[in-house]
Amino acid sequence: MRELKSWLEITKSHDFSIYNIPFGVFYTNQNQNTARCGAAIGDYIIDLNELMRYGYFKEIKELHNEIFNQNALNEFFSLGNSVCNSVREKIQNLFLVENNSLKSHPDHIEKILVPSHSAKMMLPIKVKDYVDFYSSLDHAVNVGKMFRDEKNPLLPNWKHIPIGYHGRSSSIVVSGTNFKRPKGQLCAPDSNEPTYSYSKQMDFELEMAFITNKNTALGEVLTPDNAKNSIFGLTLFNDWSARDIQRWEYVPLGPFLGKSFASSMSPWVVSLEALAPFALPAPEKDTPELDYLKCSAKAHYDICLDVYIQTEKMKEPFLISQSNYKYMYWNLLQQLAHMTSNGTPISVGDVYGSGTISGPTANSYGSMLELSWKGTKPISLPDGTNRSFLQDGDSIIFNGYAIKDNIRVGFGSLTGIILSN
Amino acid sequence: MRELKSWLEITKSHDFSIYNIPFGVFYTNQNQNTARCGAAIGDYIIDLNELMRYGYFKEIKELHNEIFNQNALNEFFSLGNSVCNSVREKIQNLFLVENNSLKSHPDHIEKILVPSHSAKMMLPIKVKDYVDFYSSLDHAVNVGKMFRDEKNPLLPNWKHIPIGYHGRSSSIVVSGTNFKRPKGQLCAPDSNEPTYSYSKQMDFELEMAFITNKNTALGEVLTPDNAKNSIFGLTLFNDWSARDIQRWEYVPLGPFLGKSFASSMSPWVVSLEALAPFALPAPEKDTPELDYLKCSAKAHYDICLDVYIQTEKMKEPFLISQSNYKYMYWNLLQQLAHMTSNGTPISVGDVYGSGTISGPTANSYGSMLELSWKGTKPISLPDGTNRSFLQDGDSIIFNGYAIKDNIRVGFGSLTGIILSN
Repeated sequence: MRELKSWLEITKSHDFSIYNIPFGVFYTNQNQNTARCGAAIGDYIIDLNELMRYGYFKEIKELHNEIFNQNALNEFFSLGNSVCNSVREKIQNLFLVENNSLKSHPDHIEKILVPSHSAKMMLPIKVKDYVDFYSSLDHAVNVGKMFRDEKNPLLPNWKHIPIGYHGRSSSIVVSGTNFKRPKGQLCAPDSNEPTYSYSKQMDFELEMAFITNKNTALGEVLTPDNAKNSIFGLTLFNDWSARDIQRWEYVPLGPFLGKSFASSMSPWVVSLEALAPFALPAPEKDTPELDYLKCSAKAHYDICLDVYIQTEKMKEPFLISQSNYKYMYWNLLQQLAHMTSNGTPISVGDVYGSGTISGPTANSYGSMLELSWKGTKPISLPDGTNRSFLQDGDSIIFNGYAIKDNIRVGFGSLTGIILSN
Repeated sequence: MRELKSWLEITKSHDFSIYNIPFGVFYTNQNQNTARCGAAIGDYIIDLNELMRYGYFKEIKELHNEIFNQNALNEFFSLGNSVCNSVREKIQNLFLVENNSLKSHPDHIEKILVPSHSAKMMLPIKVKDYVDFYSSLDHAVNVGKMFRDEKNPLLPNWKHIPIGYHGRSSSIVVSGTNFKRPKGQLCAPDSNEPTYSYSKQMDFELEMAFITNKNTALGEVLTPDNAKNSIFGLTLFNDWSARDIQRWEYVPLGPFLGKSFASSMSPWVVSLEALAPFALPAPEKDTPELDYLKCSAKAHYDICLDVYIQTEKMKEPFLISQSNYKYMYWNLLQQLAHMTSNGTPISVGDVYGSGTISGPTANSYGSMLELSWKGTKPISLPDGTNRSFLQDGDSIIFNGYAIKDNIRVGFGSLTGIILSN
């Protein structure tokens, strides 16, 4: 891959390098009414609406004047990957050291570059349907060992189906949105007399989510090989879970209120195009996939995922897990193909969570449930306290980034704090 | 209740009596771009946009000029029940025999009344989140007897929680939308080797659905006593199910593709206000409800629900079940209170399915699964064929209506046909 240098100063270790150019929605002056679409580069947000007004996109005919003057990326994404990738490439070019067109207009630059610290981010899309998968083998095995059978942890369907379920779209919130510890029905394992009280087993789930950019018709089926055209890119995703609410409610129809109180999404959507250098082939599998799930493309991605906790007493975040998106058993194309295999339509702005991404070792697990092994091995923190599950005031921070040779493409941070009631 | 007589001819047995005035979205001239909001009365649709233009709503200040010139009722519903009920009452008054204001303007009437047969109906709302409950005791007991334990059919949580799960919003379609038999992973009960093929166990589920008219904030909790202000009304609902897809996929995270291929909704939303005369107290319960689910209002409703089948060979529909919405164990206010009990926000246009509504006797079951008792007692049809599950070309028709004294308030029909591939 060709080396790219920008005239803008960007530190080498920056998530938002010239190779990345992720998209998001931001506002300034504490005024949500000013929200518009942007792209991140270094410590700046590129105001795409201003870039449009100055005519820098005039050769991309599919863009109408107000396409970036919106508080969600849905309409932009709906133009399809070919248009969105042209926009990304155009932005990239404008910031290259050898390109003078923007560099030579300091008056434009002043309007177009917004320092990131002076802006607030919104959810990048208006969420349509939200699905959460369960596609990490190590996570499924860990959960199976804890709750099912130490020696036979996987259910018979797991290696045949990208297991998934529908989740709540209304409670998907952007990074930085804090929320109160939820109440729900709790029932001790040896009892059948529940109470309605605050969850005592608050957990995070380390996930990534992909966002779709097409509306398909009722009955239309995607294959792993054509699903890629229906996905723009990925974000970090925290599927907060109240394990005690979930335990009592989930039989027989699955998780409901144990999940629906909040799910957090990082504000910058990184395109599959930017992630292409980090694609990996699928892992070896001992169970053959049915034909409709066979995928010839490389669609696993080498993305490092770090999880930090910061309690109210701690001065800085403390690393508790290092996982990677490459640990997925089913990839995102197989997930989307499976989702449509019965003819279910997808929409622009659907969110598909990967499921908790755990790696093979105890320091790469993607939830407190696994890290503390159901509370039997509490984690020691630098402030002298222990954690089996999360306490009020705890902040959970995910960082995600891919690195190869000189190229770094990252997602920034996803944070959320559990507030007391 | 006061007797109401209209100057418009409406047959006595009409679902859309002067007591009803349900709301929907229709279009004419085969042109979806002409879609606007309407209300049903007798064999006519009242074009609410025209009624607005002629000034008949001028005393209702909350209505802006374009409120009915839309292809969904979301914005109208979002005005709240007090405004929506004023609109309903105003319409009712305009059609009363003693009211001359519309009656004396044949030129207005000609524009305002559209013969129902000349219009097509659309989905009444843009669906936000969709939840399906599992709140009929007889249905849960039947399913438990078939798949769990004949003598101990109910799971321990069932009488404590209005069990529910999130479903697919993108495949909710209006009555009359036919769909192809879905494919999916099928696996014989004694095997662990699935195939990807057409479902052989297509079923309907007799349900009703309520629609919400509020956006609540993250963390806001509704109670059964204030939930009523967040619900406009009800429709008939068919949660089509592919039992064989569902069986293999649903452990441990619940139904997914066995349900998501299509769900059908009747086009007319009947207000809780119109259904008030048919409200009933809750059934006797042997298990006390937790305080957050206690409901002082009468919120069970006596609504007759008839299910018909019509095969390709049959000349007319054949009645296969007669159930009633009153057979619900958890009422709609308890369902909504439970849904928000962990702080999950609701939105204008959410759809909440009741779950299959089965009555206590074998001729009141709400699914083929129960009517044919898992295929062991196939139903004999007038065309000489039998049915355990549905065949290609089969049409399923739900009718719903409440009757008391001289008052009839109905939902019209909900139909759908399973097409071959």
